Amino acid sequence: MDMPPTVEDMTATISGTTSLTGQMLIAGTAVRGTGTEIRAFDPAAGQPLEPVYQHGDAGHVDAACAAAAGAFGAYRATSAEQRAQFLETVATNIEAISETLIARAVAESGLPQARLTGEVGRTTGQLRLFASVLREGSWNGARIDTPLPDRTPLPRPDLRQRFIPLGPVAVFSASNFPLAFSVAGGDTASALAAGCPVVVKGHDAHPGTSELVARAITDAVAASGLPAGTFSLLFGSGPDLGIALVTDSRIKAVGFTGSRSGGTALVAAAAARPEPIPVYAEMSSINPVFVLGGALATRGEELGRAFVGSLTMGSGQFCTNPGLVIAVDSPGLTTFVAAATEAVGNAPATPMLTPNIAGNYASGVDSLAAAADLVARGQQGGNETSCRAALFTTDAASFLKSEALQAEVFGASSLIVRCADTAEMRAVAQGIEGQLTATVHADESDLDEAGELLPLLELKAGRILFGGWPTGVEVSHAMVHGGPFPATSDSRTTSVGSRAIERYLRPVCYQDVPKSLLPSAIADGNPEHLWRRVDGQLTQD
Amino acid sequence: MDMPPTVEDMTATISGTTSLTGQMLIAGTAVRGTGTEIRAFDPAAGQPLEPVYQHGDAGHVDAACAAAAGAFGAYRATSAEQRAQFLETVATNIEAISETLIARAVAESGLPQARLTGEVGRTTGQLRLFASVLREGSWNGARIDTPLPDRTPLPRPDLRQRFIPLGPVAVFSASNFPLAFSVAGGDTASALAAGCPVVVKGHDAHPGTSELVARAITDAVAASGLPAGTFSLLFGSGPDLGIALVTDSRIKAVGFTGSRSGGTALVAAAAARPEPIPVYAEMSSINPVFVLGGALATRGEELGRAFVGSLTMGSGQFCTNPGLVIAVDSPGLTTFVAAATEAVGNAPATPMLTPNIAGNYASGVDSLAAAADLVARGQQGGNETSCRAALFTTDAASFLKSEALQAEVFGASSLIVRCADTAEMRAVAQGIEGQLTATVHADESDLDEAGELLPLLELKAGRILFGGWPTGVEVSHAMVHGGPFPATSDSRTTSVGSRAIERYLRPVCYQDVPKSLLPSAIADGNPEHLWRRVDGQLTQD
Repeated sequence: MDMPPTVEDMTATISGTTSLTGQMLIAGTAVRGTGTEIRAFDPAAGQPLEPVYQHGDAGHVDAACAAAAGAFGAYRATSAEQRAQFLETVATNIEAISETLIARAVAESGLPQARLTGEVGRTTGQLRLFASVLREGSWNGARIDTPLPDRTPLPRPDLRQRFIPLGPVAVFSASNFPLAFSVAGGDTASALAAGCPVVVKGHDAHPGTSELVARAITDAVAASGLPAGTFSLLFGSGPDLGIALVTDSRIKAVGFTGSRSGGTALVAAAAARPEPIPVYAEMSSINPVFVLGGALATRGEELGRAFVGSLTMGSGQFCTNPGLVIAVDSPGLTTFVAAATEAVGNAPATPMLTPNIAGNYASGVDSLAAAADLVARGQQGGNETSCRAALFTTDAASFLKSEALQAEVFGASSLIVRCADTAEMRAVAQGIEGQLTATVHADESDLDEAGELLPLLELKAGRILFGGWPTGVEVSHAMVHGGPFPATSDSRTTSVGSRAIERYLRPVCYQDVPKSLLPSAIADGNPEHLWRRVDGQLTQD
Repeated sequence: MDMPPTVEDMTATISGTTSLTGQMLIAGTAVRGTGTEIRAFDPAAGQPLEPVYQHGDAGHVDAACAAAAGAFGAYRATSAEQRAQFLETVATNIEAISETLIARAVAESGLPQARLTGEVGRTTGQLRLFASVLREGSWNGARIDTPLPDRTPLPRPDLRQRFIPLGPVAVFSASNFPLAFSVAGGDTASALAAGCPVVVKGHDAHPGTSELVARAITDAVAASGLPAGTFSLLFGSGPDLGIALVTDSRIKAVGFTGSRSGGTALVAAAAARPEPIPVYAEMSSINPVFVLGGALATRGEELGRAFVGSLTMGSGQFCTNPGLVIAVDSPGLTTFVAAATEAVGNAPATPMLTPNIAGNYASGVDSLAAAADLVARGQQGGNETSCRAALFTTDAASFLKSEALQAEVFGASSLIVRCADTAEMRAVAQGIEGQLTATVHADESDLDEAGELLPLLELKAGRILFGGWPTGVEVSHAMVHGGPFPATSDSRTTSVGSRAIERYLRPVCYQDVPKSLLPSAIADGNPEHLWRRVDGQLTQD
């Protein structure tokens, strides 16, 4: 197996410490970048944070990919139980530094401590979910077709199928979940569970948080006796280091959470490789909320207030933020809009993750203002990262013909589309792009209308919810955090929940392979006690 | 729902007849093309066949796609049982015309009657396999996470997941299986099973066979009370009508079997759409066969002869044709090569599917001749479609540095790579591109070496077989007809076997959806008696 090439300024391996060094971690070795200096920014305090990090270069990408490729054979040969224990060790290591980690994440993101405390739990919960998925074993996709030696005109051979990992995976961290969609987030957890080494490109917005988590993983790699190349953390720009990573021939799949422009650039780069690879990019969604007539009539005021609660939570920095409300013009809608207008007007300015994100938000609001009617702004903020909530309205015809009104504005901005009747509401449902979520508020009297809407929404969204708000994504078996383009680049998958492991696996068929060489998942006697499909029927025998 | 736009020269709907009209079938209506005239060619007789067909144009693509999009809502709302019966009706209809169908397919392809009789059985068997898959029900991917209303800090909602079809699918027929990978082949069967309307681009090499099968499907659509737009057959050139079809916004996925250049062109076109869609292209494979030392020593002669039997079958026109043999230089290999040389020398010239395919074969053999050592040619043929078998040798170093030697030559040509030792054999295994299959011939004494080879081959191929030959692809549950690029454009899937249905499905999550609106697959009480994953555990309760 290949060893990582020497990187010039490698320093001693670090372990068990929570002080920040400003370095990347390549296959267990701390390495200082050579490129652009980056420094986290405390959006609450309006100040940059120590230490200085630096972007990596092509040599670092090469070192991390060589180490990952070198580690792949040994890592994928581990048992599911070994990988489950490894993921649990990562979770334990993160919990051991949670106080330091949360403090740093609060400083780097401006998100409240309670939210980040919850995010630690979500992150460790994801790791443990995949440990349980590994032990349950259905991820193997084990199938056996028994031989039919006497069949005519030709005998049927012994055929067995299982899933194997794709190879080293590149993971791009998101800005808005510095833990749960970042270095040890869902993409990393699912790829490691599948048996794929991971190279993470950390997000510039939270390098300290990234370094702390990367060390927790690196320590777990060492403690679990795994090859050091199983995990690396790099920093770098998307168009530069990011593209180099995605186009490295040793990378076999990509997980990404971020912007539409960033995601589509990675998809294009991966498709242009001599050997194209899958990119799972979660990109852009405005998460339509359909409020039906009965619900509006009976609960317009309450729904209007609750909507703004979901809209402004976390400064609206959620991929599932409700950026679009669709309803039929009615007294109930007037009540809804009045309540929402008041709530937005009262919404305090809250910090966004970075000055750059706040700037993009302001531009997005300007674009909406040029194409729709402003009905409310939140309170003015005091610094360059402040998010001032915004609410607009338009009519269905204007909405359907405007690309600007369908574009995601990342932050606490939303647009209410007034429809003349339910037919127009359904036309809006049919006219929107792919979404992560679609929400329906319906009373008993709305169920017929909801039933007509449901099949339209199935074709547009990965998750359909009734009576709630789209923010808040449960990590479980039935969750789908995905959806048609541009919500994601691959609607056949989810990036949250146990099915996420399937993104990094592919089936292999074994025909008449000698019993002594068969992997245990498809061996005679079912030594792993898996659910297997034998001659088409599920069985644990 | 949209109705198909008027097509100028539509003729009366046809039904129940087996005489050929030279027309396409768009949503149940026979339509004559407007473009290039095409005529099937009888390669055995060396003569063109009546009637004349014509390529369709952009209007035909629009009509077929509009009809498919219009049919999608009603078609996907059918029950699994209804779709199962529909697929069975297609199979019955094909059987009812099998005599006419086989005669026409023999004339159009030059393939033997016995082979095409078998292919009818394979085609109807595929349709019935997917009927059984529909009834078994696991394709629904049903999952339920029960609500936890008392969980703190937040309750868990009611979450349910099922798979839904992607939408209308474009299927591109292959030349080499005029039935099993053509109009009613595996791609069509799996897409229809998933609930997707299908628009087939028939292959110019067998338009009459295509028309007959399209009528069998069209009749089944009508008899089953399904929307006419559920199925259409078009003819046209790949770069013209094919690209128009793949880039039509109403098409949501593509199945393709054909050349690497054709497949990669469709993949690129699909990726460049405003809404990119998945393309399942099965393209290019040279199907390496590793013959290990013990097997060579004891059975070199027998293996050499059997290899040529697999190589020359059907004029080598199989995507799983053994185009590459890898072995360590030894007296056993000398015996193997001598036996193969004799068998190739005795191999009669056999007809290829079309003059174009025969021409490409001759060019491919010329390319190999320029880069490797010729050891044997088959007998000279008498006409423009004759396939003259060819066998070459080279050494491992030359092979690994030559793109020409790794390129697929579609036809009865193969290359033997002589390795100095087993390490070099493994280097070849690591150096090859992605493959549909990899074969190992091993005796008891070779098992250690085979065990070292196996993990390398897992990363290169969709199917690994021991002791047989790669031609012959079982249609069953454990089969994988797929593999890393360039074998296919998406190694996570298979185009043969029951798992093929998964290509045309995506998961949707239903959160707190009212019970009265829930699809039956995920309804309370499990009315469809499905295997479902409830709180992570498989159950039929």
